Amino acid sequence: MNNFTFYSPTEFVFGKGTENQVNELVTKYGATKVLIVYGGGSVVRNALLTRIEESLNHQSVPYVTLGGIQPNPIDTKVYEGIDLCRHENVDFILAVGGGSVIDTAKAIATGVPYNGDFWDFYIQKAVVKSALNLGVVLTIPAAGSEGSGNSVITKSDTLQKLSIRVPELLRPRFAIMNPELTYTLPPYQTASGIADIMAHIMERYFNNTAETEVTDRLCEGLLKAIITEAPKVIKEPDNYGARANIMWSGMIAHNGICGVGCDEDWASHFMEHEVSAVYNVTHGAGLAVIFPAWMTWMASHHVEKIAQFAHRVWDIPESDNKKDMALQAVTYLKNFFISIGLPVTFEQLGIPDPDINLLVEKLHQNKGEYVGAYVRLSKKETLEIYKLAL
Amino acid sequence: MNNFTFYSPTEFVFGKGTENQVNELVTKYGATKVLIVYGGGSVVRNALLTRIEESLNHQSVPYVTLGGIQPNPIDTKVYEGIDLCRHENVDFILAVGGGSVIDTAKAIATGVPYNGDFWDFYIQKAVVKSALNLGVVLTIPAAGSEGSGNSVITKSDTLQKLSIRVPELLRPRFAIMNPELTYTLPPYQTASGIADIMAHIMERYFNNTAETEVTDRLCEGLLKAIITEAPKVIKEPDNYGARANIMWSGMIAHNGICGVGCDEDWASHFMEHEVSAVYNVTHGAGLAVIFPAWMTWMASHHVEKIAQFAHRVWDIPESDNKKDMALQAVTYLKNFFISIGLPVTFEQLGIPDPDINLLVEKLHQNKGEYVGAYVRLSKKETLEIYKLAL
Repeated sequence: MNNFTFYSPTEFVFGKGTENQVNELVTKYGATKVLIVYGGGSVVRNALLTRIEESLNHQSVPYVTLGGIQPNPIDTKVYEGIDLCRHENVDFILAVGGGSVIDTAKAIATGVPYNGDFWDFYIQKAVVKSALNLGVVLTIPAAGSEGSGNSVITKSDTLQKLSIRVPELLRPRFAIMNPELTYTLPPYQTASGIADIMAHIMERYFNNTAETEVTDRLCEGLLKAIITEAPKVIKEPDNYGARANIMWSGMIAHNGICGVGCDEDWASHFMEHEVSAVYNVTHGAGLAVIFPAWMTWMASHHVEKIAQFAHRVWDIPESDNKKDMALQAVTYLKNFFISIGLPVTFEQLGIPDPDINLLVEKLHQNKGEYVGAYVRLSKKETLEIYKLAL
Repeated sequence: MNNFTFYSPTEFVFGKGTENQVNELVTKYGATKVLIVYGGGSVVRNALLTRIEESLNHQSVPYVTLGGIQPNPIDTKVYEGIDLCRHENVDFILAVGGGSVIDTAKAIATGVPYNGDFWDFYIQKAVVKSALNLGVVLTIPAAGSEGSGNSVITKSDTLQKLSIRVPELLRPRFAIMNPELTYTLPPYQTASGIADIMAHIMERYFNNTAETEVTDRLCEGLLKAIITEAPKVIKEPDNYGARANIMWSGMIAHNGICGVGCDEDWASHFMEHEVSAVYNVTHGAGLAVIFPAWMTWMASHHVEKIAQFAHRVWDIPESDNKKDMALQAVTYLKNFFISIGLPVTFEQLGIPDPDINLLVEKLHQNKGEYVGAYVRLSKKETLEIYKLAL
């Protein structure tokens, strides 16, 4: 186990009706003027936004709004938000939505106090030294951004999809998590969120660090819980208990606890980011395609931890033929994804003829000669893995 | 799953050599004058205390010290600490040790700004409204106090052993956790710590709350990890990886994440507190005696979750005879405790003829007519459980 620092100072307020605490929490964390960031669609249709606005009015917390954040959120909305915050003297950002909304809010939070282009942080030209405080009302369990210090933004002109990780500044001060708010999520979005959550766990789990029994068991346990609860939320969208378990698993999967002291991988995420940046598909659905391909490749090249995953998560009996165990696990995982309505090939993802060479070029242009840590993958290997996803 | 708030803002700094960051962390969290609280023994012998004092001197952070904290820490040391803090204008408490030292530090932290007897908080006569900041250098993985908002103190004249839980004020600002500092723990203390850690998980796990799959799987996974790592630390006291896993599991077991949204039990803890208060035995060793007795009783009265524990933690095959599954699990658990050198009966604990009636009387005097939540236990039942531990 490597040395590490784990610091997760977000206040998670979880359960039925908790969105009614938004005024109290915004005030508690010192907001004097708020920017509410949201997407559109369900937040407006379900009148959640109206309720939050009324709640702030009730407490006399002034606010302005920025709507229309799209999935795979882009830089132009970030610039818009930064301008708005500066013009309106906003000192607190409230994200009402899922990962795209929260990640946009975080990008705005870094950009407001910075005397330059916020994109500098994403291309590692500058380091985030301060940020506005932010809070979250979560409506989509998936990205885990409600508990993480991460943000992923796509630059609209170059289609670069890049991330930053600044836990000490970008973890939300609070995250309101009411599972009831997820009842109206369409099944495909629910399922894509589940794949994203599982991927966040697996990116951490597949590592070569010695003596990680505690984090291994936490990861395996979470995955088992998700495999049990996922079919329930697909079948009964208003099953509170199942929705609650999925929502909470999404936070734990990505607040860092599943990977402390480990050399995390993240190759599948980086490979998927190119797919969703170029083809604008749902990130989680893209992961359901890429991760099994990555795992299939690993079965032939570095099978050890994939075999452990097979045995401990999928109850595949231990055997000397670890490759066979691993490939069985890939089949189980794919069947699981299919059972909740997700694609497991590029074709099923709606990309029958992907430009794989372009994906490989962009990937290594953005991420350097190698991606991943479980096995360091150069262009030759990432090409092979993309092909396994055809 | 019940509504809950989870807020764990402690900065955990984990790994080799991390005690060297103590000066930096104390300064980061605003200390201008520090009280160092410690026990004696190994902290002095290993020169850890000297290194910490030198480290603070180096940064010119003035400090005073309070040593001699004993296991099952008592109120008189708390009063001494409060007086010292007031006299010396201390604004930050640094606990260097295990649970007894940290719990004493927390009690002092509540008492300094309070215009009354700190014991008021423990007998629920008053509510903690402010407390000094505190930091921890952990030397014993057991109590989980490094990540919790809890403190347990014994009143020396009445032998009342009572606890408070004030997460918003009593979670340490930082906790330095270097597994190397635990190499010199005697095997019995190591094993007792392990039993305490497991008990913290099980007190949360044995609940009747519906739909707790995520927390169930986290608890089961942690227990499995501990069962794997424990024999290693007993056999090889300087096995870094195993020590690291045990140390980290002790924090996760008790920072609250294992019990969010659940009606936790805690009957075994309260029953044990009477044993260690009256007979001054090691808390964890007492739990190794009490918890299997509690579980044996439950096998006949409310078997459901004990049978799940049997199957998922101990790999006992599922069967219609759940009581049999549960009793098998009790045997496995006892054998595990015995294998790491712990007692599983009062006699083995060095109390061949315990005054069980006194324990029952004190228990219900301190905790009311009923203890526990998995099954609410009155005097009749707690008496039966104590007898099962003979």
